[in-house]
Amino acid sequence: MTDKSKTALAGVKVLDLTQFEAGPACTEALAWLGAEVVKVENPDGGDQVRRAASEDGVTDSPFFILYNANKQSVTCNLKSPEGRRVAKDLAAKADVVVENFGPGVLDRFGLGYEDVRAVNPSVIYAELKGFAEGSPYEDFLAFDMIGQATGGIMSITGETDGIPIKPGPNLADTGTGMLLAISILGALYQKLATGEGQRLTVAMQDAMMHYARFAFSDVISKGQAPGRAAEGFLTGGNAPMGVFPCAPGGLNDYVYIFVSRGNNRHWHRLLDLIGRPELIGDARFENAADRFARKDEIDAMLVPWTMERTKVQAMEEMGRAGIPAGAVFDLKELADEPDFERRGIFQWVDHPVRGRMKLLGWPVKMSGNAVALEAAPLLGEHTETVLRNWLGLSAETVRDLRGKGAV
Amino acid sequence: MTDKSKTALAGVKVLDLTQFEAGPACTEALAWLGAEVVKVENPDGGDQVRRAASEDGVTDSPFFILYNANKQSVTCNLKSPEGRRVAKDLAAKADVVVENFGPGVLDRFGLGYEDVRAVNPSVIYAELKGFAEGSPYEDFLAFDMIGQATGGIMSITGETDGIPIKPGPNLADTGTGMLLAISILGALYQKLATGEGQRLTVAMQDAMMHYARFAFSDVISKGQAPGRAAEGFLTGGNAPMGVFPCAPGGLNDYVYIFVSRGNNRHWHRLLDLIGRPELIGDARFENAADRFARKDEIDAMLVPWTMERTKVQAMEEMGRAGIPAGAVFDLKELADEPDFERRGIFQWVDHPVRGRMKLLGWPVKMSGNAVALEAAPLLGEHTETVLRNWLGLSAETVRDLRGKGAV
Repeated sequence: MTDKSKTALAGVKVLDLTQFEAGPACTEALAWLGAEVVKVENPDGGDQVRRAASEDGVTDSPFFILYNANKQSVTCNLKSPEGRRVAKDLAAKADVVVENFGPGVLDRFGLGYEDVRAVNPSVIYAELKGFAEGSPYEDFLAFDMIGQATGGIMSITGETDGIPIKPGPNLADTGTGMLLAISILGALYQKLATGEGQRLTVAMQDAMMHYARFAFSDVISKGQAPGRAAEGFLTGGNAPMGVFPCAPGGLNDYVYIFVSRGNNRHWHRLLDLIGRPELIGDARFENAADRFARKDEIDAMLVPWTMERTKVQAMEEMGRAGIPAGAVFDLKELADEPDFERRGIFQWVDHPVRGRMKLLGWPVKMSGNAVALEAAPLLGEHTETVLRNWLGLSAETVRDLRGKGAV
Repeated sequence: MTDKSKTALAGVKVLDLTQFEAGPACTEALAWLGAEVVKVENPDGGDQVRRAASEDGVTDSPFFILYNANKQSVTCNLKSPEGRRVAKDLAAKADVVVENFGPGVLDRFGLGYEDVRAVNPSVIYAELKGFAEGSPYEDFLAFDMIGQATGGIMSITGETDGIPIKPGPNLADTGTGMLLAISILGALYQKLATGEGQRLTVAMQDAMMHYARFAFSDVISKGQAPGRAAEGFLTGGNAPMGVFPCAPGGLNDYVYIFVSRGNNRHWHRLLDLIGRPELIGDARFENAADRFARKDEIDAMLVPWTMERTKVQAMEEMGRAGIPAGAVFDLKELADEPDFERRGIFQWVDHPVRGRMKLLGWPVKMSGNAVALEAAPLLGEHTETVLRNWLGLSAETVRDLRGKGAV
C-alpha cells in the first residue's frame, strides 16, 4: 500500500480527460508521483483502447492497463448537459486538467481552457495535440506515427537506403506526454509560489524535434539533412560500432559493440579480449579516423568472435573488460528476467478481472516517494467515491445522474 | 530577456555534474523552466562533446550548444583537492545535484550521495546511469545505443526481417533524462511541503521499457516478443497504414497514411478523396480485418494517387479531408520551415563565438513561464560570478584557485 504521507505530489488533484497513449502516459506519471488522478470516461465503453486493443473486445486491454495504473475512473457523458456539468464541477476542483482530445472538441463541450478558467482561475490546464495551434496543420488529425513522420523522426530511422521506419516505441505519444508532465510539474511548483495557474500546450510534431536535437547538430554543421542512422548514430564515424551477430543466429541474437573515438582505451581492451594483442599500437588502427576507414576489416575480425558466443556471453565478456557493449534483448526476455522483478521494475499487480499481471511502474527510484503500483481502474469504478469526495454528491444524486445517462 | 518573476522554478539552484546528452538534456529542461543551472566542467576542455563533436575540434560543437542552453559554466578540477572542495561547497548550496558520470566516479571524488548529504541534508541528488545499481551489469559502461539495445528498443525497430535498428533519436539519452527531470520536479514539490530531499536514480536500460510499454502489451496478450514494427506499429492490422511514395521520389518523399480500425469514417473519406466513391459500402472492405486481408490491393489503389503528388500536397489533401496523414519531413525541411520560427519552436540566438544560430528551445508553450532562450555558456564563463554569488569568494580567491589549477 502507498504511504500517503510519503508521496511527492500528495494532495494534488488531476482531472484526466485523456485517452489512447499520449495523455494517459502523462497523467500516469503524475499518479506515480502520488497525485490523485481522476480519469473521466464516457459511460459507453470508456477510453477506446479498453476494448479496441483487447484480445476479446470486452476485457480491458493490456494497453489500457499499462497506461492507466494508479488512476481512478469516473464515467461522465459529455454529450449530456448534466454529464458536462459534472465534468465542469470536477474541473473546478482540480489543480490540473489534462486533455488530448482532437482539435476543438473540448471547446464544443464547454470544457476548453477559458471555460474551465472561468470556474477555476488558478487551474493548470494542459493540452496535448498532434499539431500546434497556429500551425498550418492545426486542424488535422494525428496519431503517434503522424507525429513521428512530420516531426522528422522517421527520416532519420531505418536502414541506410531503406524506407523511413517508425521507431518501435511510440515516441510521439509517450515522448510528448513526458514533456507535458515536466511542464505540469513546473507549473505546480510555480503555483505554490504565486497561487496562479497557467495554460500549457504541446504538439507532437514540435515535441519530436526535442528528441532529435542531436541530429539537428548535423543540420547546423553541414547544412543538410542527416540520412538514416541504421544501427549506428547519425554523426558516427566510429569503428567498431553497431550490431554483431551472435549464436544461435535468431532475429535478435546480436550484441551492440561501441568503441569510442575519444581515445584508444576501448580499442586496446577489445584487441586484448578477442586475442589480437599484437595489433595494440599498430599504426593502422591507432586513431579513430583510420579505424573508421578500415571498418570492414575490423568488423571481419570481430564477427568470428561474436558468432562463437551468445549475445549475453559476448556482452558479459566485453562489459567486464571495460568495452561498451549490450545484448539486443527482446521484450519477452526482459519481461522474464528476474533482475527486473527483484528491482521492482516489473511488479506483480492484481487486476480485478485479469488476475495477477506483471506490469511496469515508474522506472526512476525515488527514496522519498513510496507510491505502490496499483491496477488500472475498471470503467466507472470510482464514480460514486469521487463525486462524493470531490463534489459532495450523495449516493442518491449519483444514482439519479446514472439513471439519466449522465454518468 | 527572461522576466525572472515569471519563471516556474524561480530561485531553484541546480548543480549540474553532467556531460554528453542524457544528463545535460535533463538539466537543460530545468533551466528552461527557470532554474539556475550551474554546470561544473573540468578546466581542461570541459564537457567532452564541446570539442569531440566539433567540426574543427576547437569551437564549441552544435551538439554541446543544443543541450546546454540557459546554463552557467563553472570550471572545477575534480582531480585537485581544492577543486573538489569548491564542487562540494557548491553542492552544499544546491537544491538539486544531477550527475551522469560512470559508475562510482563521484564516490571516488567524495561527491557521492552520502558525501553531499552530509553537507546538505535536504539535497535532491539525482543519478543517471546505463545500468541500475544492483543490476548484473551495474559496473558496465553504457552509451545511448547500449541502453537502447539492452532495453528492448532495437528489437522492435527496423524492417520486418532486417537487422535491429537504433531509432534516430537518442532515446536512452534524452528519453531517460526526461524521466529524471520529472522525478526531480516531483521531489522539488515534495520538498516544499516536507523540507526533505531525497535520492533519485534511473538507469537507461530500465527507462527504455517505459517508452516501450505499448509493445509490452503484446507480450502480455500473446506471451511472445513482438517483431520489428517497420513503418507500422506493433499491434497493427490496419490498412492502409504506412508510408506511401510521393513525387519526386527522393529518400524522404513519402506520406504516412493511417486509417483507423475503430470505424469506417477515415476509410470512406479516403475512397472519396482518391476518386473511388463506388467502393464506399462495398462489403469486401467494410471492416478492419477484411481491409487488412486486402492490404496489398488497397496499397495498390493508393500508390498511383500519392505518386502524383508531393508529400506536402498529399498530406494537405488528406488532412483537409479528415484522414490522418503526415509527410515524412527531414530535419533540414523542418529547420527551414517558417512556421516553426513564427511559433518560437526554432529561435535565433547569438552565440559569442559562432554568432547567430537557429536553435531549439522547450517545445511546450507555458503561459506563465517566460524563460528566453539563451546560448550555451563558454567553458568557465561564469566561474567568477557563481563562486562569488553562491560561495561568497572574492575575485582574488578565485584567481588564486585558478593559479593552482583548481578551477
